[in-house]
Amino acid sequence: MDNRRDFMKKSAMVVAGALALPHIEGFAAEQKFRNLNLTPGFVPKKNASLQSKLIVPQKAGLPITGTFLDEISHDIPHQNWGEAEWDLDFQYMKSVGIDTVIMIRSGYKKFITYPSKYLLGKGCYMPSVDLLDMYLRLADKYGMKFYFGLYDTGHYWETGDMTYEIEDNKYVIDEVWQNYGAKHQSFQGWYISGEISRATKGAIGAFHAMGKQCKDVSNGLPTFISPWIDGKKAVAASGANLTKENAVSVQQHEKEWDEIFAGISDVVDACAFQDGQIDYNELDAFFTVNKKLADKYHMQCWTNAESFDRDMPIRFLPIKFDKLRLKLEAAKRCGYDKAITFEFSHFMSPQSSYAQAGNLYNRYKEYFNIK
Amino acid sequence: MDNRRDFMKKSAMVVAGALALPHIEGFAAEQKFRNLNLTPGFVPKKNASLQSKLIVPQKAGLPITGTFLDEISHDIPHQNWGEAEWDLDFQYMKSVGIDTVIMIRSGYKKFITYPSKYLLGKGCYMPSVDLLDMYLRLADKYGMKFYFGLYDTGHYWETGDMTYEIEDNKYVIDEVWQNYGAKHQSFQGWYISGEISRATKGAIGAFHAMGKQCKDVSNGLPTFISPWIDGKKAVAASGANLTKENAVSVQQHEKEWDEIFAGISDVVDACAFQDGQIDYNELDAFFTVNKKLADKYHMQCWTNAESFDRDMPIRFLPIKFDKLRLKLEAAKRCGYDKAITFEFSHFMSPQSSYAQAGNLYNRYKEYFNIK
Amino acid sequence: MDNRRDFMKKSAMVVAGALALPHIEGFAAEQKFRNLNLTPGFVPKKNASLQSKLIVPQKAGLPITGTFLDEISHDIPHQNWGEAEWDLDFQYMKSVGIDTVIMIRSGYKKFITYPSKYLLGKGCYMPSVDLLDMYLRLADKYGMKFYFGLYDTGHYWETGDMTYEIEDNKYVIDEVWQNYGAKHQSFQGWYISGEISRATKGAIGAFHAMGKQCKDVSNGLPTFISPWIDGKKAVAASGANLTKENAVSVQQHEKEWDEIFAGISDVVDACAFQDGQIDYNELDAFFTVNKKLADKYHMQCWTNAESFDRDMPIRFLPIKFDKLRLKLEAAKRCGYDKAITFEFSHFMSPQSSYAQAGNLYNRYKEYFNIK
Repeated sequence: MDNRRDFMKKSAMVVAGALALPHIEGFAAEQKFRNLNLTPGFVPKKNASLQSKLIVPQKAGLPITGTFLDEISHDIPHQNWGEAEWDLDFQYMKSVGIDTVIMIRSGYKKFITYPSKYLLGKGCYMPSVDLLDMYLRLADKYGMKFYFGLYDTGHYWETGDMTYEIEDNKYVIDEVWQNYGAKHQSFQGWYISGEISRATKGAIGAFHAMGKQCKDVSNGLPTFISPWIDGKKAVAASGANLTKENAVSVQQHEKEWDEIFAGISDVVDACAFQDGQIDYNELDAFFTVNKKLADKYHMQCWTNAESFDRDMPIRFLPIKFDKLRLKLEAAKRCGYDKAITFEFSHFMSPQSSYAQAGNLYNRYKEYFNIK
Repeated sequence: MDNRRDFMKKSAMVVAGALALPHIEGFAAEQKFRNLNLTPGFVPKKNASLQSKLIVPQKAGLPITGTFLDEISHDIPHQNWGEAEWDLDFQYMKSVGIDTVIMIRSGYKKFITYPSKYLLGKGCYMPSVDLLDMYLRLADKYGMKFYFGLYDTGHYWETGDMTYEIEDNKYVIDEVWQNYGAKHQSFQGWYISGEISRATKGAIGAFHAMGKQCKDVSNGLPTFISPWIDGKKAVAASGANLTKENAVSVQQHEKEWDEIFAGISDVVDACAFQDGQIDYNELDAFFTVNKKLADKYHMQCWTNAESFDRDMPIRFLPIKFDKLRLKLEAAKRCGYDKAITFEFSHFMSPQSSYAQAGNLYNRYKEYFNIK
Repeated sequence: MDNRRDFMKKSAMVVAGALALPHIEGFAAEQKFRNLNLTPGFVPKKNASLQSKLIVPQKAGLPITGTFLDEISHDIPHQNWGEAEWDLDFQYMKSVGIDTVIMIRSGYKKFITYPSKYLLGKGCYMPSVDLLDMYLRLADKYGMKFYFGLYDTGHYWETGDMTYEIEDNKYVIDEVWQNYGAKHQSFQGWYISGEISRATKGAIGAFHAMGKQCKDVSNGLPTFISPWIDGKKAVAASGANLTKENAVSVQQHEKEWDEIFAGISDVVDACAFQDGQIDYNELDAFFTVNKKLADKYHMQCWTNAESFDRDMPIRFLPIKFDKLRLKLEAAKRCGYDKAITFEFSHFMSPQSSYAQAGNLYNRYKEYFNIK
């Protein structure tokens, strides 16, 4: 300490005495900047027992107990896992308390997750593995609930019109229930996979038709949706902008979703709004409205806690833990019923191709005190 | 099973009985959503012996037997490998049956792969390693054929005009053959590296001039090109769009490439169209034309099977295995002669910085039954 | 060799004799292209003792002895490290001769690095870990100098106006010096974190005010800035372009920074221009001017050697080693005083989530002959 303070005093005197050339003297002790100052024999070694010192209360957020399975991906590059990796990932999920897995969609355009006679007949490509069968076997094995995500034609992403989705899913729902649903204990519900927001044409009718069919065929198994809030970060993943000007207001959001919930709540049991399109300081305002609407229509209020980061030029890598924490804490404060995430395998798994995900897994366990 | 069916029956009764509040009851068994349900002592453990259950015929695709080496990269971030990593990568290539390596270009603008007296004199930067020497030594060592990719001035990427390329390559071809080609058994051919499509001005003349010089200097060693099809995904890597409207039709493609092949086929032995700019359902139509044209002009018909994914906002990460499979199957169906890839080291190698690549390697081996 | 030359001679004869069908014969030896040619029992094995053969002089660049710590990131995705990873990273830094760590900013908009009473009162989010405390403890432990980066409101990134920055930092500088600076031997200076260029309104006044307060409160501890040169690559990270047209000329750069330095040099000790916005062949021209200006105003001339690659569509991954080398060599040629980097932990660390970074670490050690 003394040496430093001597250096400082000298430096201070110079500063006090004259403004001329303070810096050269200020850096006097560092005149050897240009040489490497190596410590012979110093070998880096990890001390895994070092714990981060948390200065926030643990477990103040709603824990994540469900995750999407993003095998037919819209915009997240594929990990090329085989069954060994998926088996391990279900174990990682289970080890942090995830009890629900949701196949995000059974197909997207021409890529499909299972050898659907109907969709193959329409020109879809044969998958090399029956992912639906695999996921159900793994969910059975590890005692998890499986939700089946409906087929996504891709039309409404481009046209904003949902009505195309009904026709194909008529066949999909039937064949899936018959060939898979009725045979697996883990098949516990349906995810009506259309990612809509307020302006999606025909969404109410389409969601109602598909939700009703899911329930009718399966003795009323639960259904849910996961729409997005038309907030400031609701921008195209492949575009150049991270935010937009014309975000929806909380009031307008409430008005429009009141109308949508009124039209679908008899056949949709839960709504898990995506939590990433609004800013962190808007979470409570939107979440409060979401919970109020869910209560009004006797639906469950879930949050789809996005575990990827929307604020970065690379779209998308795992989210910074504190951002996820803020969102889960808001969900708990607002009395939400359940947190699911999009999604564990890319963004939170120790075996993710993105190493940041394994670190997020560790931070998550630290915060929720999971040993 | 019974418990679940009981729950379902209850749920169904509620649904049948009244539309009011079905969901709350539907989720009754899940009322503890908000608590983590951890299994004490459960430790994830990988079972590496688990095999994926393939539901498609194995080996129905054309196997990849060649790869580009992308050391002077245009748009793929560098891996910073040393000779130890390159030596290992040639082994990984060999282990899946790759017998041909193609240095994608010997230089790009001011960055070059070998200490070219000519190019250094023009202001290019001295490389820290003679990559050309290293690749040839490794190809000699592992019994692989090496193709040398010509120098790329960068001009035609910006101007669409190929004529600039001839002048510099006059010198490059001579000095490379004299200093490297004649000395290494593995030096087995030339890659005329200009990545053109139909609209590239002066391409026929430039390709002919460069192809002829390559053959003249080397006793007729084989030459090939790898152009792109001007399809719907032929967009700028750094731009915001993933597709474009004005894609070429199959008929127009045939007409224009008939003309190009007519002008170059006496000095170009093979054409390996890039396979990523068209959609998967267009593969057979374009591949059939490509094979027909190659046959007509007595050229070999190769495919450049891109192992990166063009459909994602991150440009670029490894491709989903099933997409690669669809492309290789189309190449086999259409009677193609050889499949090469762009490229193994980033997108298919177990030591790639992208962990998805190692998984793709495993899926590839599984499908081609490589032990 | 003989076999190959025989094949070549044959091929050459065909070429000489007739233009018809040269290629089919040229490829005769490769007629089995379509079959995989596997070597039974061949198992890839890394030979770690293989050394790259450098053809450039070692240590001709200025070594990197400082790095930013990018914990509150503007545009680099977060790694989610805990204290164990940070402790290890300081060791990796030390092992290559880094003696200076600079926290790039103490906060950005509402995300902050330490529980600042002042900033929390303004609506910032509570961080889960006191990063400032952690960094200072680690810098104390490993004998490194720590520079504190001021708070960044985010305003000037959007408005181009720096004056907003003064007000908040009045409080931040005081509370940080009192609560952290005076207590840690490693607290050795200040980084005035505004990333300005020539056109930033109010920069001189803001930098002077903040620099003066830093010095006044801390007995004249050194301060530095790290602005960007308004070169051809000075483009938005989330935009579609990699370069722009209206880059600044060397002459204009000198004129404008002469004025800026004149206004701040009594309270700013060093300037570390970011080195990534200009092209590699412009390095010497700009660096010469920078050094001349620094000398004129008795400031130290540092370089902020960016270890990420600005030339790629993915923004951003680790830089190719040779690009970093060219920049460090130019800095040494121009007599620079010190090289720092943005930044070690993502782009040069063996434990980075980007595996290319660990390879860059190895190439860097090879070049600087660090065992």
